[in-house]
Amino acid sequence: MASVEDLSARLRDFAAERDWNQFHTPKNLAMALAGEVGELLAELQWLTPEQSRSVMDDASAGPRVRAELGDVVIYLVRLADVLGVDLVVAAFDKLADSERRYPVERSQGSARKAPPTRSTG
Amino acid sequence: MASVEDLSARLRDFAAERDWNQFHTPKNLAMALAGEVGELLAELQWLTPEQSRSVMDDASAGPRVRAELGDVVIYLVRLADVLGVDLVVAAFDKLADSERRYPVERSQGSARKAPPTRSTG
Amino acid sequence: MASVEDLSARLRDFAAERDWNQFHTPKNLAMALAGEVGELLAELQWLTPEQSRSVMDDASAGPRVRAELGDVVIYLVRLADVLGVDLVVAAFDKLADSERRYPVERSQGSARKAPPTRSTG
Amino acid sequence: MASVEDLSARLRDFAAERDWNQFHTPKNLAMALAGEVGELLAELQWLTPEQSRSVMDDASAGPRVRAELGDVVIYLVRLADVLGVDLVVAAFDKLADSERRYPVERSQGSARKAPPTRSTG
Repeated sequence: MASVEDLSARLRDFAAERDWNQFHTPKNLAMALAGEVGELLAELQWLTPEQSRSVMDDASAGPRVRAELGDVVIYLVRLADVLGVDLVVAAFDKLADSERRYPVERSQGSARKAPPTRSTG
Repeated sequence: MASVEDLSARLRDFAAERDWNQFHTPKNLAMALAGEVGELLAELQWLTPEQSRSVMDDASAGPRVRAELGDVVIYLVRLADVLGVDLVVAAFDKLADSERRYPVERSQGSARKAPPTRSTG
Repeated sequence: MASVEDLSARLRDFAAERDWNQFHTPKNLAMALAGEVGELLAELQWLTPEQSRSVMDDASAGPRVRAELGDVVIYLVRLADVLGVDLVVAAFDKLADSERRYPVERSQGSARKAPPTRSTG
Repeated sequence: MASVEDLSARLRDFAAERDWNQFHTPKNLAMALAGEVGELLAELQWLTPEQSRSVMDDASAGPRVRAELGDVVIYLVRLADVLGVDLVVAAFDKLADSERRYPVERSQGSARKAPPTRSTG
């Protein structure tokens, strides 16, 4: 089964073969990531939240959403590789913070207690 | 070693325990993802591309960048879980497209041939 | 009454007085703009579309949304000044395109005919 | 000379004539704004900061950047109209804050003192 590590290695080769490492600075890759996330938003912007739950069932929009997610992952994994960050470990560390800040018993179904709109990084 | 699947499962539990699935529509999660990517951009916006290459060596900015990446991964993995998309497979599929569109011999070190600014998704 | 031109001039002075023009490249300013838009999204991400219609009535969120809009305008106006683009004229030109592409009689209340998810540049 | 108010009024008519107000919630418009900012980033992502300073001189990229700026303005002005926020006043208020936080004498040409990466909104 393909892993993030496999993807990261193949993206590294892809860039090296084309001599694109010169363009793959963290700054540039973060911009590319944001551009792809913008395209993902565009697919969902006119849908209601409920409609968005079934977007993958749409024969036209579904594949587009999947392709945009693929693009997002590509730039995110490439960015993390260039920075030397293990994405999954970074996410688990951040999640551990959230588990402390949002104790189950005090965070029941409240929009106020929904994930903070700004990370405390 | 922790995998994307492990993370996805733990995020699913995290949301369910807090009764937050009601907020976790693809539309909302895509917005949260974009918000976190915005915070990541903010860490890199005043750096030169070259400075951004060594941002992880900065005792102050490095951990912030890593934390923002963690947040990005959290919302991306949660979004993919809600949509039923395998992120790594979606990325490999998209990469196969790019390999066809950017043949090695015709894409040498040219900014023009750098990854397209818009996916053809 | 304060105009975009007044704001643009004052932002120019603000940057010059602090010797910040060196940081105010279009690339950097576009990143800063995107970062501020990310903060705006974060204010709206957990609201339903209907709830978002009355966000300005919320004593806590309303001023935050207004402040984020102010930040977005600041970087957008600064970016346009550095690029030498008249924002209002550029918007009118783009709107004229949309009026041609979305004739009134064929665009009635249909999500399909809602503004395109990708500009045609 | 065309003003933001003129543009706002024409966008209001444009939406009303097509019965699109139903889609123009602040949440949806903020997503559309972010999508357009993403397209703007995509135009600049592989350029160096210096190259980005002359992007408007490029016969191909220049008009695209201008068109993306037009799209950004359209959604930003529409969003502000729906929220009832005066964009220019909101920006001047935010700028007054920044003038207090970044006194001229203590903010000379220092990246550290560059505009904060997070608004204190």
